[in-house]
Amino acid sequence: MTVADRSPSAHDVRAVRIRIDLAYDGTDFAGWAAQPGRRTVEGELSAALGTILRADPPRLTVGGRTDAGVHARGSVCHADVGQAGWASLPARSRSAPAEAAVVRLAGVLPRDIVVRSVHEVPAAFDARFSALRRRYSYRLCDHVERLDPLRRRDTVRHKRAVDVAAMDQAAAGLIGLHDFAPFCKRREGATSVRTLLDYSWAREPDGTVVGTLVADAFCRSMVRALVGAVVPVGEGRYDVGWPTRVLHAGRRHPAVTVMPAYGLCLEEISYPAEAELGSRAQEARAVRESG
Amino acid sequence: MTVADRSPSAHDVRAVRIRIDLAYDGTDFAGWAAQPGRRTVEGELSAALGTILRADPPRLTVGGRTDAGVHARGSVCHADVGQAGWASLPARSRSAPAEAAVVRLAGVLPRDIVVRSVHEVPAAFDARFSALRRRYSYRLCDHVERLDPLRRRDTVRHKRAVDVAAMDQAAAGLIGLHDFAPFCKRREGATSVRTLLDYSWAREPDGTVVGTLVADAFCRSMVRALVGAVVPVGEGRYDVGWPTRVLHAGRRHPAVTVMPAYGLCLEEISYPAEAELGSRAQEARAVRESG
Repeated sequence: MTVADRSPSAHDVRAVRIRIDLAYDGTDFAGWAAQPGRRTVEGELSAALGTILRADPPRLTVGGRTDAGVHARGSVCHADVGQAGWASLPARSRSAPAEAAVVRLAGVLPRDIVVRSVHEVPAAFDARFSALRRRYSYRLCDHVERLDPLRRRDTVRHKRAVDVAAMDQAAAGLIGLHDFAPFCKRREGATSVRTLLDYSWAREPDGTVVGTLVADAFCRSMVRALVGAVVPVGEGRYDVGWPTRVLHAGRRHPAVTVMPAYGLCLEEISYPAEAELGSRAQEARAVRESG
Repeated sequence: MTVADRSPSAHDVRAVRIRIDLAYDGTDFAGWAAQPGRRTVEGELSAALGTILRADPPRLTVGGRTDAGVHARGSVCHADVGQAGWASLPARSRSAPAEAAVVRLAGVLPRDIVVRSVHEVPAAFDARFSALRRRYSYRLCDHVERLDPLRRRDTVRHKRAVDVAAMDQAAAGLIGLHDFAPFCKRREGATSVRTLLDYSWAREPDGTVVGTLVADAFCRSMVRALVGAVVPVGEGRYDVGWPTRVLHAGRRHPAVTVMPAYGLCLEEISYPAEAELGSRAQEARAVRESG
């Protein structure tokens, strides 16, 4: 057994854990997760880190594994990188390695990924399991003539006009601790119990209809199904209590569609103060890491 | 002499003059003006009108001839279209021709052009010469790590941090009726006297630096040169009074660069109430149409 194996999180003691805050335009990515032969955010970012650190591309752990076409303005991931490569980063600048990393990454990353910041973090920080909550936005344009063509990559054209107040009211009924199975892709052995902390809809001054969803965590495709659950209410096809009835019925309903990916954006992942990181990660792992 | 030739604006009396309000993402266009073999906004829109009217593509007159790469959220043009084709537009819907035109155009236009509205207007309306003022915005990101990758097509990355208050103060000094020759491409026989009605800079909550420019009209490349005149002030390379001194010196200054096109967006063109249209068009033509 090596020294590294005996450390609390089994990470190389000569490694540095870094937190990376990033944004991306998901249009031209096959989602976050690296896949052989596909262009993914993880693949590009990991390769860029390998380039600036002159090392093998590190493994990344992300707080929000987005699907193909989904965007992010506030994603967070972590990586363990070799101490030697990390310390050599500021060679050409006089800043700290973390600041140098932001500048170097900007030089090698494609234009559709922007790294906002890099920080050294304690080994207890886990981008996935330390996260307290995730916030997503969803953009809809229900009057196609009002669409800003400069926002067409992150705003879904919706042919029928929607009643935003009704959508907002319907959304509020879903808030709380529930089994969101009717809005999740079924995954054997994994729970779909989540706490939806906020779910609201509003129309912006330019006419765009924007939904905001906050939860401790979301299951696969859950955000887009929760949007798909209230859009029929906005269209007047169902009453405002209908999404709550679907939730309590406990089964998927054919009228709830998973809305298109490109309207969705991961806006923010929230973490506790560093002192709480260790206990939070254990707790989240115990609850969710069964599948 | 035909009846048409005797009408005030020499237009075909069997024609209908229509005003078209539109927006476009300028990224993939060689500007507004039609050019053989190039993809232009005018070319695409004129062709689309020809398609829905089953007629030759009409000639368009625009209130803001944007250069290659410049965007628009509030452009306005007019066209004279045949009465027969126009009246036949609502054949498949029950709306008025103008409303039907918006729907039909949405069906044939590429995704980077959005027609916001179509209106029948009096023959006295001229999208170019009736315009009272034009409003443009310019977007800069001076901390590349803050750039929203979803806005990278209309936000210029600027490597040096800028002092927005200094830019705003410098810009205010240029407001007024002046000969803007130091900020215009020279054009023989044409005046460069314009009234800059507003010019301000502010930082948005997400960190983007946005300039707003309003004038009765702008000469070719004038907006981008006016941006280029205050950016060196924001960088601390010149004092806030410098752009005004360049203006009064009456000559182009090598430190004033014409900023990149893709940060610029034509936001709005303002027109007088219909009653005033005729007189305003005559006035503007007399002042500007010498070249």
